[in-house]
Amino acid sequence: MNINQNYLNLKDSYLFFTIAKKVQEYQAAHPEDEVIRLGIGDVTLPLVPAVTGAMSKAVAEMDDAATFKGYDEYQGYDFLKQAVCGYYAKKGVRLGIDEVFISDGAKSDLGNILDIFSTDNTVLIPDPVYPVYVDTNIMAGRTIKFLNGTDGNSFLPLPEADTAGDIVYLCSPNNPTGAVYSKEQLQLWVNWAKENDAVLLVDSAYEIFIKDPSLPTSIYQIEGAKECAIEFCSLSKTAGFTGTRCGYTVVPQALIRNDTPLNKLWRRRQSTKFNGVPYIVQRGAEAVFTETGFAQIKESIDYYLENARMIAATLTSLGIPFTGGSNSPYIWLQCPNGLSSWEFFDFLLSKYNIVGTPGAGFGENGEGFFRLTAFGSRENVMKAMERLKSMKP
Amino acid sequence: MNINQNYLNLKDSYLFFTIAKKVQEYQAAHPEDEVIRLGIGDVTLPLVPAVTGAMSKAVAEMDDAATFKGYDEYQGYDFLKQAVCGYYAKKGVRLGIDEVFISDGAKSDLGNILDIFSTDNTVLIPDPVYPVYVDTNIMAGRTIKFLNGTDGNSFLPLPEADTAGDIVYLCSPNNPTGAVYSKEQLQLWVNWAKENDAVLLVDSAYEIFIKDPSLPTSIYQIEGAKECAIEFCSLSKTAGFTGTRCGYTVVPQALIRNDTPLNKLWRRRQSTKFNGVPYIVQRGAEAVFTETGFAQIKESIDYYLENARMIAATLTSLGIPFTGGSNSPYIWLQCPNGLSSWEFFDFLLSKYNIVGTPGAGFGENGEGFFRLTAFGSRENVMKAMERLKSMKP
Repeated sequence: MNINQNYLNLKDSYLFFTIAKKVQEYQAAHPEDEVIRLGIGDVTLPLVPAVTGAMSKAVAEMDDAATFKGYDEYQGYDFLKQAVCGYYAKKGVRLGIDEVFISDGAKSDLGNILDIFSTDNTVLIPDPVYPVYVDTNIMAGRTIKFLNGTDGNSFLPLPEADTAGDIVYLCSPNNPTGAVYSKEQLQLWVNWAKENDAVLLVDSAYEIFIKDPSLPTSIYQIEGAKECAIEFCSLSKTAGFTGTRCGYTVVPQALIRNDTPLNKLWRRRQSTKFNGVPYIVQRGAEAVFTETGFAQIKESIDYYLENARMIAATLTSLGIPFTGGSNSPYIWLQCPNGLSSWEFFDFLLSKYNIVGTPGAGFGENGEGFFRLTAFGSRENVMKAMERLKSMKP
Repeated sequence: MNINQNYLNLKDSYLFFTIAKKVQEYQAAHPEDEVIRLGIGDVTLPLVPAVTGAMSKAVAEMDDAATFKGYDEYQGYDFLKQAVCGYYAKKGVRLGIDEVFISDGAKSDLGNILDIFSTDNTVLIPDPVYPVYVDTNIMAGRTIKFLNGTDGNSFLPLPEADTAGDIVYLCSPNNPTGAVYSKEQLQLWVNWAKENDAVLLVDSAYEIFIKDPSLPTSIYQIEGAKECAIEFCSLSKTAGFTGTRCGYTVVPQALIRNDTPLNKLWRRRQSTKFNGVPYIVQRGAEAVFTETGFAQIKESIDYYLENARMIAATLTSLGIPFTGGSNSPYIWLQCPNGLSSWEFFDFLLSKYNIVGTPGAGFGENGEGFFRLTAFGSRENVMKAMERLKSMKP
């Protein structure tokens, strides 16, 4: 008996643990200070009435043998897959219902999708980045190469002459940098993937925050993407589903490798290792895509985007360079005066009683940068920005 | 770019597809016949009021920013883990709260648990058996050896002098045979696993159907099991959660391989590739373990067990040998007159308009056997048994 030895190569992540500990210690030493958390990655607004109304109705259906729902077909109910297809149609993307897989969230699928690929593939991962891309590939023992996201490329790495790999992760709008790829930039990645027989794993969990109509909200708005890209979406940030759990993954029928449709492989993986999303949750998710539901979630998204705008405006007035802050709930700023991520964390906490996330936690290229998020309450964001206005960068 | 070539070794399962097609064709040819389905593996009774009441309350909480729940800690809320520990305590098993992992169902965890083991382990799988044990290991390219379940051992294979392997699947009460291991038999497996540094993966999804107090309902009722066994449980059959999705997996802290606690590895796997069960569902699951909830689900279980008893009594009166039928929702019968599984299927369908599941669909040793289930309505079970009474075996 041997365990999977690759697990021993995983680094323990102490990022959020260390943050919590430092805040706790500061608060214990200064009980009179009001600490504001702008590092939070979870939503704070409740589910919208259209969603809770649909879920209440579904709970009642489950209470009656005549309307009770048992196993579904693991890939989601047609009513929800159709709603997702309708959402894509509004973006100008036509999908077949069998190309949509309902999931319990983008994170699960981003990890589990690796099952269908050989472990001898080389993986290209942006740095800085959402840490699970790296960890899930370490678990499988794959070779990882990093795509450098820096000031110089606005944290949007592009394929270069010597870029070589089989699987590429893209996240746009990006977590943690808030940077958004343009259509022209994504076209470069799609062209590269097709030329190199690679597959793009596109994390679009934050697409709803894109307001600029010139920016793409789906990889399939890019010519040729259906032949090289899988897209992962989530209702977590779109509709406050972080504790309700529902997302969707698109695997186009045109995406074929080793003469095998990846759609068929993923269907087989999910049929065998997954049993579907609760009926009640799928009814709630369906409501997100109705006219009423969409109008309601748009209000929440606009609330968060206004928070982001206020944070961005303050940084601009202070002359602190940043990415994100519009078309994204994240603001990624350069630590002033050459401070390291953690030095700036301590400075912000002790001087302004504001908590954020040190960029070093998202990869080597994150050192010297800092993430703020727009998911807090308006009141807290306003208070925090008022405090920062006096900062001498 | 290469796909995971192991997927190409999977056999397509046409079992339920073929059944559906045959029934459809028969019904088209004989529209006047009333076909009764006794092959169904899904529950038919609705969720109990304690569960839907708790879920309705949770939906209301999600509607209000003050009580809204976002991300949890991925392994489940303490309130539910504590309820599970309380359920185990009644069985005489003491578990720590950090040994319980809340999941979206036993099937997901039974597949995903393999992540933490090396792919060079040899796996021992009973035959006949629930097909996902086999498929998930084929996907990972592991060597599979089968443990023969036959008439001779009442479909309860035990370790023998030459039994060698690293991972062993046990399912008791068994799907499809309904057979239940005794304490003495499970003790043999535990002793063998400890002597051979193996790990037992114990699927206890049907433990609630065990009424005989001398039979074990958890592997941890067996001396030494915490050092060699992981147990998978589900509310799917226990509380009608097939479409609501919640289960729990127990990884004891005492279970250590390669000097590494498997609890730590599984926690890392789930933290990285899973985002937890919906808050609403966890509140519904918690209600199952309350006094009121438990009394309500007991009524449903007793209803199914009475169906099973009626089917078993009919087979006994006909002189047809079978396993299961008590302490289990499954009845596994020997096809009369030397008929093959599919021949008996056709015979039952055409002569008595009854649909079951051919045993050959569960492995080579299932040939010549047939599965009936107790999940139908009482009315249908009574009608079907009335028809069968005239059968000349």
